[in-house]
Amino acid sequence: MHLQIHRDQMTHAINDVSKAVSSRTTIPILTGIKISSHSEGITLTASDSDISIEYTIPLEEDGNLFVDIKQHGSIVLPARYLNDIIRKLPSEFVELHVNDRFLSTIRSGRSEFNLNGLDAEDFPRLPQIEEEKVFSIQSDILKMMIKQTAFAVSTTETRPILTGIMWALEGDQLQFVATDSHRLAKRQATVEALPELAFENIIIPGKSLLELNKILPDNDSLIDIVVTDNQILFKTDRILFYSRLLNGTYPDVNRIIPSQSKTNIILNTKEFLHAIERASLLAKDGKNNVVKCSVDLGGVMEISSTSPEVGKVTDEIEIKSIEGEELKISFNAKYMLDTLRVMDSEEVQISFTGAMSPFIIQPTDAEQMLYLILPVRTYQ
Amino acid sequence: MHLQIHRDQMTHAINDVSKAVSSRTTIPILTGIKISSHSEGITLTASDSDISIEYTIPLEEDGNLFVDIKQHGSIVLPARYLNDIIRKLPSEFVELHVNDRFLSTIRSGRSEFNLNGLDAEDFPRLPQIEEEKVFSIQSDILKMMIKQTAFAVSTTETRPILTGIMWALEGDQLQFVATDSHRLAKRQATVEALPELAFENIIIPGKSLLELNKILPDNDSLIDIVVTDNQILFKTDRILFYSRLLNGTYPDVNRIIPSQSKTNIILNTKEFLHAIERASLLAKDGKNNVVKCSVDLGGVMEISSTSPEVGKVTDEIEIKSIEGEELKISFNAKYMLDTLRVMDSEEVQISFTGAMSPFIIQPTDAEQMLYLILPVRTYQ
Repeated sequence: MHLQIHRDQMTHAINDVSKAVSSRTTIPILTGIKISSHSEGITLTASDSDISIEYTIPLEEDGNLFVDIKQHGSIVLPARYLNDIIRKLPSEFVELHVNDRFLSTIRSGRSEFNLNGLDAEDFPRLPQIEEEKVFSIQSDILKMMIKQTAFAVSTTETRPILTGIMWALEGDQLQFVATDSHRLAKRQATVEALPELAFENIIIPGKSLLELNKILPDNDSLIDIVVTDNQILFKTDRILFYSRLLNGTYPDVNRIIPSQSKTNIILNTKEFLHAIERASLLAKDGKNNVVKCSVDLGGVMEISSTSPEVGKVTDEIEIKSIEGEELKISFNAKYMLDTLRVMDSEEVQISFTGAMSPFIIQPTDAEQMLYLILPVRTYQ
Repeated sequence: MHLQIHRDQMTHAINDVSKAVSSRTTIPILTGIKISSHSEGITLTASDSDISIEYTIPLEEDGNLFVDIKQHGSIVLPARYLNDIIRKLPSEFVELHVNDRFLSTIRSGRSEFNLNGLDAEDFPRLPQIEEEKVFSIQSDILKMMIKQTAFAVSTTETRPILTGIMWALEGDQLQFVATDSHRLAKRQATVEALPELAFENIIIPGKSLLELNKILPDNDSLIDIVVTDNQILFKTDRILFYSRLLNGTYPDVNRIIPSQSKTNIILNTKEFLHAIERASLLAKDGKNNVVKCSVDLGGVMEISSTSPEVGKVTDEIEIKSIEGEELKISFNAKYMLDTLRVMDSEEVQISFTGAMSPFIIQPTDAEQMLYLILPVRTYQ
């Protein structure tokens, strides 16, 4: 193997595939990045047990030469060194030369690195995916949907299925649901799909989607998505991102979303967020971080929190509009902060059905989003 | 105690004095910040065993009202909460009200915090300093001197005296020396001092100076410095920064600085820095991080490093000028990186006196700086 690669292209590719490099050294070859050449350019591959990423650097683009292949081949090089080395090389191009004992020479300007590589034949094969169920979504919308739901997945393995985000597609509507059984996030968006394509109960590990989110571009380019029984594949121009799916049946969350409400209020999102932030300041060591809200018909919401050792905080914000009964309710401030921080609407509507029932938070300007928080029982 | 304070002024003051807040809770009152009012404004004080910081917010400045005192008093409030609370308050001004049981109310807009305070009478008194030995230095020069020497102090307590920076003043020349016995940094600058004022062997903990560095402004305002037998005091417009001194006699470092050399070279600082950075990449796990340099009379320096498991790196840079003998020498890359990173001159001169003797690194455009590194013996 002997080639020349554009350094910044290589840096970018390593950075993206690194998201899938295993940090555990139980399978040493997975701590490496596979580099292989082919007629279209070179492909970098990394994989751990959950995700695999392939990044292809084309031979050229818009008349700029990126890769010059003198002799085809493939090699696995240690990811943790490769990243730093390529980034710090002095010249615009990097020469990679691999001899028959996997000893690899990386040359750039007057710098030369000799690295012990591993046989690319030993690198695991990526899943074979038949492209049956394919649909497309804009990259920035997909990123937004991930951001607006992933925070609600479970971080414990008590119910492994809840560590994933459940996807369902019907018609041109793609829905994400995440819940850790204390709060729930639901987000819907329009995608480009053939009408006969429909699925439900596709559960993707939350971690996989967060890694995907780091790689996807923040623009309106289309991402092709292929769903199979146990894998999902995301395709961009240069990247193939594979994630395993979680096995099992996702709980029917529609059962727990109340359809009626007793108190409906509208608040300014930022004002409410800042008041909750202040109320949670004293409780930062506390396990539950409970804040109390009281809604009175006079149009004021009082938000308070007490930490026996440190002190007490009370805040008031204006209620923009109110329908229904007065109410006092307590909840975990963290759940509310997570929710309000991913909302980009100026106002939020909150629908309560009593102090002990889950309540709904929704932006006033979009029906495609719904958040649910279970209140906390307090004895005061 | 009852007063109104400008929020951003308060945030700034808390931020600065926080550098002296003790993180250990063995003496609970030292995890707090003392706030006390007086006829000039309010003063915030924090102290740990090494440093104490006082920050005074004046009643007003340039016609802007900062503090409005309704009733004088003092209180100690928990630092870790105070910072977050003040920063997140909704209005431009903060009202602080303390009742006779130290219960403190902080009010801003419609937010109210009740915090359990502590009796300010229990807060330790700051050292009384007689202003005998006073001199002045520009803030930005003092910051630069700290940055260019503090990295070389010892981080172990084997010889406690070496965890400090030794100051000496003679005429209008102030000198800093730091060494951990493997490398040495020496930096000199001109100060404003009375000719009869002279001292040596004033040893200030490196940590104190690094904290001071975070607080000092990056401009040419003058800092007054008062030295006593066991304390040093730095004074700005609003801040008094006290540090204890280290007891003991600092080693006579002039003995180990070679006065003659056998090989003198001049290198481009950035080129050399980048080559050393690359050479140290493979050794990042290694304890000693040794790189080898070979200087040949043809005007090329070869820099190399080997990590048995990972591989090998070789780099070459141009020597701008060379006098004397050829040489091969090995040293700890970290020491060289620390040194080159604080140099702002375009070129450096390195003076060797053989493979086993300490060598000197100096900027070519300033004689006020001198760095010394002890080489490492290698068996190859």
